[in-house]
Amino acid sequence: MLAALLDAIQPADAAAGREAQRRLDSLTKPPGSLGRLEELARRLVEITRRCPPRIERPVIVVLAADHGVAVEGVSAYPQVVTAQMVENFLAGGAAVNALARLVGARVVVGDFGMATPLSAHPDLVSRRIGAGTASIASGPAMSRAQALEAIAAGAELAAAEIARGADLLALGEMGIGNTTSASALAAAYTGAAPAEVTGTGTGIQPDRWRAKVAVVERALAVNGATARRSMGDRPGGLDAVDVLARLGGFEIAGLAGVALAGAAHRVPVIVDGFIAGAAALAAVRLAPSARDSLIAAHRSAEPGHRHVLEALGLAPYLDLGLRLGEGTGAALCIGLARAAAAILGEMATFKSAGVSDRSADAAGSAASERQA
Amino acid sequence: MLAALLDAIQPADAAAGREAQRRLDSLTKPPGSLGRLEELARRLVEITRRCPPRIERPVIVVLAADHGVAVEGVSAYPQVVTAQMVENFLAGGAAVNALARLVGARVVVGDFGMATPLSAHPDLVSRRIGAGTASIASGPAMSRAQALEAIAAGAELAAAEIARGADLLALGEMGIGNTTSASALAAAYTGAAPAEVTGTGTGIQPDRWRAKVAVVERALAVNGATARRSMGDRPGGLDAVDVLARLGGFEIAGLAGVALAGAAHRVPVIVDGFIAGAAALAAVRLAPSARDSLIAAHRSAEPGHRHVLEALGLAPYLDLGLRLGEGTGAALCIGLARAAAAILGEMATFKSAGVSDRSADAAGSAASERQA
Repeated sequence: MLAALLDAIQPADAAAGREAQRRLDSLTKPPGSLGRLEELARRLVEITRRCPPRIERPVIVVLAADHGVAVEGVSAYPQVVTAQMVENFLAGGAAVNALARLVGARVVVGDFGMATPLSAHPDLVSRRIGAGTASIASGPAMSRAQALEAIAAGAELAAAEIARGADLLALGEMGIGNTTSASALAAAYTGAAPAEVTGTGTGIQPDRWRAKVAVVERALAVNGATARRSMGDRPGGLDAVDVLARLGGFEIAGLAGVALAGAAHRVPVIVDGFIAGAAALAAVRLAPSARDSLIAAHRSAEPGHRHVLEALGLAPYLDLGLRLGEGTGAALCIGLARAAAAILGEMATFKSAGVSDRSADAAGSAASERQA
Repeated sequence: MLAALLDAIQPADAAAGREAQRRLDSLTKPPGSLGRLEELARRLVEITRRCPPRIERPVIVVLAADHGVAVEGVSAYPQVVTAQMVENFLAGGAAVNALARLVGARVVVGDFGMATPLSAHPDLVSRRIGAGTASIASGPAMSRAQALEAIAAGAELAAAEIARGADLLALGEMGIGNTTSASALAAAYTGAAPAEVTGTGTGIQPDRWRAKVAVVERALAVNGATARRSMGDRPGGLDAVDVLARLGGFEIAGLAGVALAGAAHRVPVIVDGFIAGAAALAAVRLAPSARDSLIAAHRSAEPGHRHVLEALGLAPYLDLGLRLGEGTGAALCIGLARAAAAILGEMATFKSAGVSDRSADAAGSAASERQA
């Protein structure tokens, strides 16, 4: 299953991007004057091979799971908040719901392994890999088989949404303790030091931050995943799935699967913040071309996000100091993606609007200059 | 008229802001985790005294005028493009139209003095102060009386839109040559050197950029508006209206009036980029408290914008390398303002959603820690 998925992932279509650029340059604006909005428009065309790209049914996939490492006191909130917040998502009262409504996105919630299951709900997809992971501070979070199962479940969930018409996917997550897991993954995948990739998460105090760094260090050590630059892509000799199994979470592995499925179907994948970014990085370590379908929504306040973005080679579009997760930054970026698509799809050209292009009007322009 | 307008402008309502902050902290998210979106939400409440703020009828006011300085060859496009682009706005084919539709904003276009008038159009407000300004490189752009007339016309246009229900105003502009005027204003108002505040506008080459800097230097010299820090707010001993009259444009003075009227009516004013920013700075020099109603949409690629933003004491919400004007960056920021309002208006509280707050759950959290 994974091999077939990885094989289906192709790089960006550079020719389609050039075609998009020609169209952008024909529109009634100085070339390049819409800056990174033009870059985003071009990337959407390179991914989807549609010009203008169609963003009519964006779906925010919010995967939730619990983390054994929560027992280490790494979060400001108790573990029960994972399930409580999932109920809040299903009731439409969370930040991601408010922001999704604003950009016309649907929120799909997946239980990939919370500590206790919730009762059935029409918007809740249950793909429980287990009742929370084991603590990464003591050993592997999950088995390799579970990691593969979570990736496959995420990919299947995404493929089902695409089959129902989703034309853009966004990655969101919920899981008390999951910034610790993301920090460990970031350290293992990028070789950055634990203290560089560990932040205050939901808002812990300095003494607990120091303890959290120690937990990340311990997780890397006990799992044999301490990265050294000399090891390249295989920290401790582990492959990308092993790293994910030992340090990740069920929702993080699931999101890696969502990203891979998006890439395989040439559907743009907007990556939220630090935790979704760690999942995206896992996906790219499995299939480097998956990177070409990813759009980094925003720069998180979590310090590890910078390292993840650098490893992904992606520059985010927003920098608002967000550190909530849930897909909130991705939801805001859907608005920008729609704006980029609208530029390509709705603007008049110099020719259609009868506006003088500077190249077409070099004579008139030169005359103006001579008057000076 | 101007004195009454200035008298009506009051500072932000700090008590309303504190009330908004209390509400933000009660919502189901870690305190502060939505970063600058929370700051924006709080500012909207401080301006409007409504919690949640209502953004149902945003209006982008795009004012257009021609600039005598265009004869100096400071733009990549001929002057006729001002009117051609206004026709494009009225036909709905410009970038600002596409972006305005996406956020449900209406675009109101004002002719504040293009070289030649257009035929009547239902969406075109004609408030022509003249047939383009005189070249600032040779003398004053307009008389002091014309500057006051343009400010009043902008304020009246804004007041009429507010009376019709506008609950947010955004400033946009069109005028070939107007980055030169904005650069001269930025130099005069902030004391920055002409070379620091002069950019490539719509896209001129380096030799023309050097010529443009010389034009700005000449404009400051012939108009007696060379700023020295020791002069404080009165470059060359001129007051803010004189500076605007000598170096500005009809659309820039008009936008200053729109900003003042927004502030007087406690309606948020989203400032687009460099040129709208120069207009906003003129407004703030006339009424310092007007600053409290301004929201800086984005950081323009024009180098002078940084100086304008610093003088305004505003940090922009977007940084996408835009340099188109028209109100395009402001349109994108309307999406963020709506997001900020939705956070305050639509999110559940910890209490209403039954989610454990960390303060309410300190015991449980401590128990988790002990398990470690």
